[in-house]
Amino acid sequence: MHSLQFTAESSSNGMVERDFTVGDVPGVLWSPASGTDRAPLVLMGHGGGAHKKHAAMAGRAHLLVTGCGFHAAVIDAPGHRDRPRTAHDEQEIAELRKAQAAGEPEGPIVVPYNARLAELAVPEYRATLDALQDLPEIGADGPVGYVGIGLGTAIGVPLVAAEPRITAAVFGMMWPDALVEAAKQITVPIEFAMQWDNERIPREAGLVLFDAFASKEKTLHANAGKHFDMPLFEADSATRFFARHLGRAVTSPA
Amino acid sequence: MHSLQFTAESSSNGMVERDFTVGDVPGVLWSPASGTDRAPLVLMGHGGGAHKKHAAMAGRAHLLVTGCGFHAAVIDAPGHRDRPRTAHDEQEIAELRKAQAAGEPEGPIVVPYNARLAELAVPEYRATLDALQDLPEIGADGPVGYVGIGLGTAIGVPLVAAEPRITAAVFGMMWPDALVEAAKQITVPIEFAMQWDNERIPREAGLVLFDAFASKEKTLHANAGKHFDMPLFEADSATRFFARHLGRAVTSPA
Repeated sequence: MHSLQFTAESSSNGMVERDFTVGDVPGVLWSPASGTDRAPLVLMGHGGGAHKKHAAMAGRAHLLVTGCGFHAAVIDAPGHRDRPRTAHDEQEIAELRKAQAAGEPEGPIVVPYNARLAELAVPEYRATLDALQDLPEIGADGPVGYVGIGLGTAIGVPLVAAEPRITAAVFGMMWPDALVEAAKQITVPIEFAMQWDNERIPREAGLVLFDAFASKEKTLHANAGKHFDMPLFEADSATRFFARHLGRAVTSPA
Repeated sequence: MHSLQFTAESSSNGMVERDFTVGDVPGVLWSPASGTDRAPLVLMGHGGGAHKKHAAMAGRAHLLVTGCGFHAAVIDAPGHRDRPRTAHDEQEIAELRKAQAAGEPEGPIVVPYNARLAELAVPEYRATLDALQDLPEIGADGPVGYVGIGLGTAIGVPLVAAEPRITAAVFGMMWPDALVEAAKQITVPIEFAMQWDNERIPREAGLVLFDAFASKEKTLHANAGKHFDMPLFEADSATRFFARHLGRAVTSPA
């Protein structure tokens, strides 16, 4: 088991940002600038082609840290940002670009590629969680949530199915094909986002994945618009979802 | 045109509650206890078999008034609470009870009955809005929203389609049959709530109605559970929706 090594630290916007590694996996942990004794942790998963410090990750972290006093952490997915791309990664990405250029369906490429990334990433997330829980400001028995859209859902659904420490999750925007069986094992509260006019992932596919979760509390948020039009207020909504389930009030209008 | 007559006033929980009539239609207006110069107004429509002071109405009003500084107003639907029931009302209600007791579908009874109530109620809501806008604390050119679930949607969809003063609306939980044509005329931002396991209104029926709105911004909130299990946090969400669209920040964690 690898322990967590901090490699850089900075502070802005009411957050402390600490880069870290767990083994050879790079990540970032955002925490409240004003120290708290133990606070809940939200693990995050970035989208396909993005990375741990993408604006969507830093933005969600800001809402969670400054609005709720939570910690938020994310690691680069295999083949993304600071991690080496394999020949297989290069091939999958080339095929995806080809399909996009030809206007062909992306699902047949993205689904197996992301399923392969998830196989690698799930144990990495679990090791990262082990290491983060060794930090005194997080601790081994505090509440843990997970949020990830797109690739973050392809990784997150098998992660949450396997990981009893995660007790609330926000997912969305992924084909159901590789995920339905894991989704059926998930019983924790879920918020699930989809785009009603998604040109990449058919509407029915989004509804099938939402339907598969066994959670007694699950909420679908479907917004008008295409794949990349997901409104920013969904990040506010996810923050309030975690505030409800991980046990802190939102302290500023989010 | 009838003007508004106040018939009772009380104050609690940070709200002033004023009963009123416009012609022979009774209503209630909730306003901030600390007077403001002009504030946005949210019209509300109660559910079938409920009334203007049902807990769902008073609860939404409390969030809107104390959270956003808005006014909130609702009138009794025809045949409800303080309004006389016609022989037709009695007959429809008896048929509905019979269908419920026999476990038969309610849609064939509720849809035409609520459509008839909407025909009566839409002009009543418009006259109420005229009268409310004569009050100095509301005014003729301030933002106006509408929220109503169930019967409140059966009335609200044709109301919002007909009424250009209403610029944002929250609907949900009604069959599409009598409403699709009006929904297609609506272009203002919409939040639409449904229950994913509704035993009365089939899932597909809810999705058809949501799909019909022509609004560029529309959000579906589908929650796991049966008809009466709609979670309370949907009222918080509706409050934030109106805060976004009618122009005030939510001032306390809602």
